[in-house]
Amino acid sequence: MSVKILNVKEDILGANEEKAKTNRELLDKHHNVLINIMSSPGAGKTSLIMQTISRFKDKIRMAVIEGDIASTIDADRINEQDVPAIQINTGGACHLDANMIEKALYKLALEQTDLVIIENVGNLVCPAEFALGAHKSIMLLSVPEGDDKPHKYPLMFTEADLVLVNKIDVLPHFDFDVKAFSDAVSGLNPSAKILPISAKTGEGLELWFSWLEDALK
Amino acid sequence: MSVKILNVKEDILGANEEKAKTNRELLDKHHNVLINIMSSPGAGKTSLIMQTISRFKDKIRMAVIEGDIASTIDADRINEQDVPAIQINTGGACHLDANMIEKALYKLALEQTDLVIIENVGNLVCPAEFALGAHKSIMLLSVPEGDDKPHKYPLMFTEADLVLVNKIDVLPHFDFDVKAFSDAVSGLNPSAKILPISAKTGEGLELWFSWLEDALK
Repeated sequence: MSVKILNVKEDILGANEEKAKTNRELLDKHHNVLINIMSSPGAGKTSLIMQTISRFKDKIRMAVIEGDIASTIDADRINEQDVPAIQINTGGACHLDANMIEKALYKLALEQTDLVIIENVGNLVCPAEFALGAHKSIMLLSVPEGDDKPHKYPLMFTEADLVLVNKIDVLPHFDFDVKAFSDAVSGLNPSAKILPISAKTGEGLELWFSWLEDALK
Repeated sequence: MSVKILNVKEDILGANEEKAKTNRELLDKHHNVLINIMSSPGAGKTSLIMQTISRFKDKIRMAVIEGDIASTIDADRINEQDVPAIQINTGGACHLDANMIEKALYKLALEQTDLVIIENVGNLVCPAEFALGAHKSIMLLSVPEGDDKPHKYPLMFTEADLVLVNKIDVLPHFDFDVKAFSDAVSGLNPSAKILPISAKTGEGLELWFSWLEDALK
């Protein structure tokens, strides 16, 4: 049975890559930058996006695509900030795919947008396998999850352009070795940038904001 | 494309259900109890299992099946406790399935075992969809992940016999409303038992041990 699954998966992934390319062409045509934020459930993706909206909403025209199995909790929070938010409910699927993103992009006023942020489904496995057409992939790992995650979920860390280590405000309460974590990430992905932050207290966020401004150039 | 995926998935899930039944028959024949522990990455499954081994290894004959995308970090920790541990590396798959468990069960001396604990791949989505043949399903949610997870990942909470809320030692440092969380779980799954614990400090573990002893009767 495992070989059968693999073939189906390769077909699906191939079709997805094609659609991701079409998405990228659409975005480039409208001078939009698309970033894809991935993490475990509860690592702080929505909090990071809220901080980013607070910082940039008067300077950059933003939109957010929220991926969840169910609920509109996160999109509701974004909409309260007067930033357009599209909620994708995957209805059980553990990741977003390029088709879902295409549908969401067509619902946004792309010609009036500079930056589109995707909040992927909370999951350290499947989202990394499905290209969406994003210009940059960001992996958010929170301190309470532990420093061994690059060994256990290598693909996610290998694919990321930027790795954010969130919830550093609670470092004193957890056994998290920042050096060991950074070494493990660098071993998998020498070009990935690693930034420690706290989306709650704001610590380290200026470096994230600078990184994002560079990505928009 | 989505309809195509769904059909394939239904075939796979159907075949998996059949295999899960065969696993259960094998376990019942040998008077083994199989429990399946599911959570996000880093929620504390391995720490819970280590505490459970410390408590029961002189009273109950235990074995552990460790599911990970990659690495043998967790199985190595279990083996150090002189408890048989089988590591399943899924090579990219985001969950264990009944075929993988069958292979692992055949590597264990089932006639000399009372309790088999499965540590599923860290993921709040896919593991809940794949029956393994387990007698009990346990969902472990850690405080830093947030109290909104039952709304976002309902299937996992709907399927669980027991929901453990781990890392309660750090409750003062997070905005986690235990009452709101418990209400959300009960709304999805009125018969699920909910126990707050700290696998690190040991708080609340006596109730977990009692629950497990009842499951073994």
